[in-house]
Amino acid sequence: MARRPEDIPRSESPQDHLEAVTRLIAKQKLVEDLVHRQGEQDGRKPALVEGLVHKQNLAELQKRLDGLHPADVAYVLEGLPPLDRIAVWGLVRSDRDGEILLEVSDAVRETLLADMDSAEIVAAAQHLDADEIADLAPDLSEEIVQDIIEAQDVDERAELQSALSYPEGTVGALMDFEVVSIRDDVTVEVALRYLRRYDELPAQTDAIFIVDRDDRLLGVLPLNKLLVTDPDVEVASIYQQNVVSFAADSDAEEAARAFERYELVSAPVVSADGKVTGRVPVQAVLDYVRERQEQQELAKVGLREEEDIFSTVWASVKNRGPWIALNLCTAFIASRVVGAFEGSIEKLAALAALMPIVAGIGGNTGNQTATLIVRSLALGQVSASNARRLLARELGVAVTSGVIWGSVLGVVAWMLYRNVALGGVMAMAMMLNMIVAALAGLFIPLTMERFGRDPAVGSSVFLTFITDSMGFFVFLGLATIFLI
Amino acid sequence: MARRPEDIPRSESPQDHLEAVTRLIAKQKLVEDLVHRQGEQDGRKPALVEGLVHKQNLAELQKRLDGLHPADVAYVLEGLPPLDRIAVWGLVRSDRDGEILLEVSDAVRETLLADMDSAEIVAAAQHLDADEIADLAPDLSEEIVQDIIEAQDVDERAELQSALSYPEGTVGALMDFEVVSIRDDVTVEVALRYLRRYDELPAQTDAIFIVDRDDRLLGVLPLNKLLVTDPDVEVASIYQQNVVSFAADSDAEEAARAFERYELVSAPVVSADGKVTGRVPVQAVLDYVRERQEQQELAKVGLREEEDIFSTVWASVKNRGPWIALNLCTAFIASRVVGAFEGSIEKLAALAALMPIVAGIGGNTGNQTATLIVRSLALGQVSASNARRLLARELGVAVTSGVIWGSVLGVVAWMLYRNVALGGVMAMAMMLNMIVAALAGLFIPLTMERFGRDPAVGSSVFLTFITDSMGFFVFLGLATIFLI
Repeated sequence: MARRPEDIPRSESPQDHLEAVTRLIAKQKLVEDLVHRQGEQDGRKPALVEGLVHKQNLAELQKRLDGLHPADVAYVLEGLPPLDRIAVWGLVRSDRDGEILLEVSDAVRETLLADMDSAEIVAAAQHLDADEIADLAPDLSEEIVQDIIEAQDVDERAELQSALSYPEGTVGALMDFEVVSIRDDVTVEVALRYLRRYDELPAQTDAIFIVDRDDRLLGVLPLNKLLVTDPDVEVASIYQQNVVSFAADSDAEEAARAFERYELVSAPVVSADGKVTGRVPVQAVLDYVRERQEQQELAKVGLREEEDIFSTVWASVKNRGPWIALNLCTAFIASRVVGAFEGSIEKLAALAALMPIVAGIGGNTGNQTATLIVRSLALGQVSASNARRLLARELGVAVTSGVIWGSVLGVVAWMLYRNVALGGVMAMAMMLNMIVAALAGLFIPLTMERFGRDPAVGSSVFLTFITDSMGFFVFLGLATIFLI
Repeated sequence: MARRPEDIPRSESPQDHLEAVTRLIAKQKLVEDLVHRQGEQDGRKPALVEGLVHKQNLAELQKRLDGLHPADVAYVLEGLPPLDRIAVWGLVRSDRDGEILLEVSDAVRETLLADMDSAEIVAAAQHLDADEIADLAPDLSEEIVQDIIEAQDVDERAELQSALSYPEGTVGALMDFEVVSIRDDVTVEVALRYLRRYDELPAQTDAIFIVDRDDRLLGVLPLNKLLVTDPDVEVASIYQQNVVSFAADSDAEEAARAFERYELVSAPVVSADGKVTGRVPVQAVLDYVRERQEQQELAKVGLREEEDIFSTVWASVKNRGPWIALNLCTAFIASRVVGAFEGSIEKLAALAALMPIVAGIGGNTGNQTATLIVRSLALGQVSASNARRLLARELGVAVTSGVIWGSVLGVVAWMLYRNVALGGVMAMAMMLNMIVAALAGLFIPLTMERFGRDPAVGSSVFLTFITDSMGFFVFLGLATIFLI
């Protein structure tokens, strides 16, 4: 269901709403507490007083919630600890449940859905459009989704099944079905009259789609153009024939780049035979860009969106476990590299103190290279034709930086331990590990991209693994050869 | 200047354009090469043949460039190595220079501007709107900006000076001046007639602003609403009175969240006395969100947007230097912590092999906590009232994870070195460092936020510094007490 702009309150920020609700809840608790204690003193339960004040408070809270935009209610729910959150959720008008579920974060949605029974969820879905139900579906059980599908009428059911069929990350998942289209053989006046038959146009309609008699897309007519054109002019003479359109199964990231590039507000989605199947509104793109960004941030340190600061301790421990386990494995292997040189370390303990520097700086420079490559991949700057040039450049940077920083550290090690040979080994190891880091920073993201993995997410673990292990190996190896 | 949707070509992707241009350049080079060699053989310079083929090729390239959307030209320029890029830039029609400069990345913009003289830059700016010139200004010298200001007529000059006054990260920097506003005491028909006097409405106009006789904002009238309303109805009875509006000096990130939350396409910017000074279009928000994300990515590993994969080796070495230097300092301090225990390591070299695990896993868990906190800060979930609960929760997670993973590693260390006491020290050190990591992951972002720094960017260096140093200290300290 499209947001009605009418019910957007503006004078207060979402933070204000959260504070107001928190205050009301605290007040309610205070009353409960007071009444409870008094009851204990009197030896009876003053149900009447409690009931009255209780009701008054609840009514105030409920009134406030009813006045809020769904996104603001979502913000309030996200900011409340679990018990208060469920209490407030119970006060939300049930016809607004659906649109609020759409707005909350995954972690909070899970807790809210856990508080609803199947009938309530199916009822909430009745207030949503097909594309919105599809957004909720991943968090629902197979059975409930089936119940929701059966509760729809025939037209809606087809749309819903189509919406459910698009995996996350495709244009289909950003698409809605709120298309306004007209034929090209009418005048502007007819078009205007046709539009006036709507009670309201779908939100973010910036253009109407022009189609032929078989519903195939011919072009788009921006409302801006329609509004400034003389009513007698034919639509055929003013619509844009070259339009950005997408296939439902194409990559959402590509579509997002096109929205940025061409400053689109909405774009049609067409099937293989050129028929209009839906449209992508810019807001779906904005949400997608932000959500993808947040998911990547979390995925980089092995977190999932299902965890937030109100999750239980045990849920967090489990959520973070696989990541720690993976890093333990890589750290263990690096540790075995050091283990192989324990003999050398026994003879010269300074090696133990210096080896983390070689490994750490390798990790830093490798991550710089990897970040640059990930960005260039996203911008489409990396191609087969410039891969060799890129390799030469990164090696050039690594060797130059290696000479500079290797020398600095070599001198520091020499001064610190009054040992020229140790300084020389340090400098050489730094330089070699920076070259290793540059190669890893270049090839790990390229390889991940080639195998269809998101290079922004997993590169760092592999990279640190390589720069740590190789850093230890090169430094301790050189030391064993030249110093021991 | 608003993008004309008419000049957007759709059938080919920007990658296709880049490949086509690269092919044309290669062909051109081949011809030059061939002609040059032939010339050497003949002992004379065949200027005529070269000139002809040359001209034909250039004309084809130029024609292709002229047909491209400015954003596509920008994409092509970004994807070309520096020399080819400058050659292609020379072929771009000079009246398009401005809009293309707006679209390219900072690194590429620098190279293009370096190729232009002041007069060319001032001329390019003549084709841009005030807000667009302001976007370019940070990359221009003080003098050139002054020349551009002087070249504007009086009205434009005032807008430009206003646009230049807003720092990056404020709503003012996202604002343009393309406002369409009408009074509220007219009918829909009058409003429609008024709009028809425009040749075209500004891009991304989804609503017209309703103002009183002093130009103070009363509300907005969505074009969607205007189009479906009977012409005889008064505008006063249909416009929305509660609108999301921003002050020019408010935080751009807040505005971006409001655009997402309320699904806005554009929003008015008002002065302190309620007058409309401009508007924020959703595309400026989308660009801002994406650009901020990319800047954060780069800043996290100490890169600046000025570097790309075509920068010179020396520019990259300089660009990355400060970051490496900072990390060297922290690594050096951690190394001195190890240095203090060299006596213990000499006696038990296994400590050197095991210590990187304790430090590394501390860094991993600390970064998980920090990422979660940074996200919660962005969502406004962290407040003074729940800080203590948050601390308790993170400590709970740290202790639980510490017991689990500490035990695992303790057993591994025990088996590996057949030394129960070493296993015990390992387990204890792991647990303690995970607690340190949780505290660091919690307090570092909170402190950065309090001091107005972006917690997403600098947290990781501090955090790794603490988990490394403390990891070494705790592990080697315990080992010295119990094992040596």
